[in-house]
Amino acid sequence: MLTTEKRRQELRAVLIDAAERAISTGGLAAIKARELAKEARCAVGAIYNVFPDLDALIFAVNARTLALFEHFVARVESSPPAEGDDNPAVARLVRLASAYLDFAAANHARWRALFDHRIVGPEGETIPDWYIAEQARMFSLVEKPLAALRPDMDDESLRLFARTLFSAVHGVVGLGLDAKLLALPPAVLHRQVEMLVRSVAAGLLAERRDRLPG
Amino acid sequence: MLTTEKRRQELRAVLIDAAERAISTGGLAAIKARELAKEARCAVGAIYNVFPDLDALIFAVNARTLALFEHFVARVESSPPAEGDDNPAVARLVRLASAYLDFAAANHARWRALFDHRIVGPEGETIPDWYIAEQARMFSLVEKPLAALRPDMDDESLRLFARTLFSAVHGVVGLGLDAKLLALPPAVLHRQVEMLVRSVAAGLLAERRDRLPG
Repeated sequence: MLTTEKRRQELRAVLIDAAERAISTGGLAAIKARELAKEARCAVGAIYNVFPDLDALIFAVNARTLALFEHFVARVESSPPAEGDDNPAVARLVRLASAYLDFAAANHARWRALFDHRIVGPEGETIPDWYIAEQARMFSLVEKPLAALRPDMDDESLRLFARTLFSAVHGVVGLGLDAKLLALPPAVLHRQVEMLVRSVAAGLLAERRDRLPG
Repeated sequence: MLTTEKRRQELRAVLIDAAERAISTGGLAAIKARELAKEARCAVGAIYNVFPDLDALIFAVNARTLALFEHFVARVESSPPAEGDDNPAVARLVRLASAYLDFAAANHARWRALFDHRIVGPEGETIPDWYIAEQARMFSLVEKPLAALRPDMDDESLRLFARTLFSAVHGVVGLGLDAKLLALPPAVLHRQVEMLVRSVAAGLLAERRDRLPG
């Protein structure tokens, strides 16, 4: 019994590795059961013994990509901050946004797969709960420095603003790396991300000043 | 001769109509030569007499979507502004961003096709020049109110900032309408877009104040 379970786990890992390589080179379109089975040296049917369907396999790859991103951000956060007389929360937001850009540029196809993967079932799209929880962790990275910037904001507004700022940076990175809208060189993209985060932060601080009793 | 050319133009229009309907219901994945030929009552080969390939047909549909968007925005811009003691440039930016959200929500599949359509040829992605010019027009909508807000900025910075703000709003709209990240209700999305644009604008004004000789 144990051996069967162990073999299942091994096949799972081998399949995730193969799917990860396929996505890294060809994106989601490269996920094909026959190719994966060939790579993993198993029968096509064996894939469905360890994954309910290919979407579940893609989610497993995407979870790895998210973990890789968290690891990447943690390394950036532990490095000493750049010099300057910046507000530390603003500096942290700029570093987070820059890290996001760097990660997306370095892992372009895998990063796109995080957002391009859509499952439309009979009841609309379905996403595993654990995947939603992973994504919430990503937003919460932004919440902390925002809370330091605006201790007056309630939790719900902070959560919404964190998601908004994340999405805004995501938009700049996504369109910037997308050749269709004339891909921008990395230095320009960094400038864009920084100008966006700095003006949002300056706006948040200005709005707070305006609200303080004069 | 003339009749042949006229027939070509007619077939072109019928094919664009058919492709537009296909994209509106099933997205880019619904673009299939056989289906289109059936809809247009022509032979599959006839498609390639009027379009070099299906990508060119998709560009033609996307150009219509962009024109529809410009028309939509023009109507919003000509309507009387909301009440309030807003800076008129800020109010205009908020209205543009809201219009973008409304258009994307109302024409979701067509709007996604504008960004999902990628052509990778042997020399990388290729985009017709006229399509790039169309997109530049979209960015320039944002440039005017930005210039009013920051007359001190040089043209290059304004252009880059306009593209940045467009991309940021696009990110909020795109992730907000995407069910995978928990689709948000329209009212929350409007709040997000407005808080983003207002804080960017407040930041731009604050940065300008800081720069003015005291």
